Amino acid sequence: MQTISKNKCFGGVQGVYTHRSNACACDMTFAVYQPPQASEGPVPVLWFLSGLTCTHENAMIKAGAQAWASDHGIALVFPDTSPRGEGVPDDDAYDLGQGAGFYVNATQDPWAKHFQMWDYITDELPTLLFRNFDLDEDAQGITGHSMGGHGALTIGMSFPDRYRSLSAFAPICNPSASDWGRKQLTAYLGADEMEWAKHDASKLMADKGYPGHVLIDQGAADANWDLLRPDAMQAAMAGRKQAGTVRVHDGYDHGYFFVSSFMEEHIIHHADILYA
Amino acid sequence: MQTISKNKCFGGVQGVYTHRSNACACDMTFAVYQPPQASEGPVPVLWFLSGLTCTHENAMIKAGAQAWASDHGIALVFPDTSPRGEGVPDDDAYDLGQGAGFYVNATQDPWAKHFQMWDYITDELPTLLFRNFDLDEDAQGITGHSMGGHGALTIGMSFPDRYRSLSAFAPICNPSASDWGRKQLTAYLGADEMEWAKHDASKLMADKGYPGHVLIDQGAADANWDLLRPDAMQAAMAGRKQAGTVRVHDGYDHGYFFVSSFMEEHIIHHADILYA
Repeated sequence: MQTISKNKCFGGVQGVYTHRSNACACDMTFAVYQPPQASEGPVPVLWFLSGLTCTHENAMIKAGAQAWASDHGIALVFPDTSPRGEGVPDDDAYDLGQGAGFYVNATQDPWAKHFQMWDYITDELPTLLFRNFDLDEDAQGITGHSMGGHGALTIGMSFPDRYRSLSAFAPICNPSASDWGRKQLTAYLGADEMEWAKHDASKLMADKGYPGHVLIDQGAADANWDLLRPDAMQAAMAGRKQAGTVRVHDGYDHGYFFVSSFMEEHIIHHADILYA
Repeated sequence: MQTISKNKCFGGVQGVYTHRSNACACDMTFAVYQPPQASEGPVPVLWFLSGLTCTHENAMIKAGAQAWASDHGIALVFPDTSPRGEGVPDDDAYDLGQGAGFYVNATQDPWAKHFQMWDYITDELPTLLFRNFDLDEDAQGITGHSMGGHGALTIGMSFPDRYRSLSAFAPICNPSASDWGRKQLTAYLGADEMEWAKHDASKLMADKGYPGHVLIDQGAADANWDLLRPDAMQAAMAGRKQAGTVRVHDGYDHGYFFVSSFMEEHIIHHADILYA
């Protein structure tokens, strides 16, 4: 692992790091924010998974999360959204290939060799993270935005013992029934929709739910509402009386001005659980 | 004036606008954040002037200011740092020409036709702003970062009745004695250093000071320390017993992670004065 940059930020350190990924067969970059409390011992960790077209950098720069992570003693991890670089396949569309890994392990060519983002996020990067940073592996939460909200919900529900807190900003809730999903799941996983089920947050919610209180924020003015399908998630949550808070905010759209506006409440949501 | 974008943000509206500038003889873009309190009547305004290479966008996206502007009922204005576009002269260096207007009225060719940033910031843009937004013209503060800190200090000290509160993040303090200054002031204003004096914050501070409490933050790990010359400003402030707070923060560098870390305190500094 190599350090690309370190900047003091709200009393802590915002770092950017790169490493060779075996899962993705390429170099991968990620960012970690260590709050000031980290200098006195391991602190809880909140994973933030980003959306289509993003790298590790977008949320690190635009979400404003460090201010409140510093207040509440939470470390932040911002992974990239896909493998990248020469030799890594891509697509002309913004929503397939590089920048659009969808947090799955691809089984189909040409994607299978590199696009193993499920393993990268849930196995390789955590191993690297806890070996190199003094963080509390027993106090992890996960959140994300849009495609990253999809990743947070599907990963959080799949590893509920590991991710003790779960939230999402405008997540892709039902990719099996959305143009933000069907195309990508077909490309990465093939046409058999049975293979998609574990990557559909609304189906996972209907099938198994999550053992904690889930927080989901959504803007009412989000132009992607029909692609995100928050209605499907709300129906699945209601169907099993899932503990949670789903909020639709008048006037907010899909961008980082929306994400940052509610970031403090997400940080507090996770801190309350991870410090309990 | 045309609206480029409007996004709901912390209960208010972050807008981006473009207009034909007579001062700069080109189209200019700027951003305004109106906090939620603005819907109930005029609110105070804080001008944020940005640094070298920046547009209206950098601070709008990276400084995190909207969170605290919303808390404290302050509108924010983010102007561009220079004229831009085809026909506007430029230089290969990052620190001259487009993105590097230095908040002066150029008198020298090829800059004089467009580079009238002093008039743009102090005359044309305020007129446009208060005609189009319901903001409190009698409650204006000014701040900025790096070259924009230079702009804030020189403009604030030149119009102390208008800018009732003044602060700066890592400002260029003494451009007459710095490579961030001598080159640009020569290019824009000519070789006669008498013409530079009103654009040197340390000289203005020594000559006239400011009738309020000035807040200046600076990172101790700022690689540009010798270009910024905070020592010259501190000496000038001490020389006249200027009311103010100058803080040097261990470990912080020159970037937006530094700016955002202290933004809340700057917003509070301005709000306390502008709401008094």
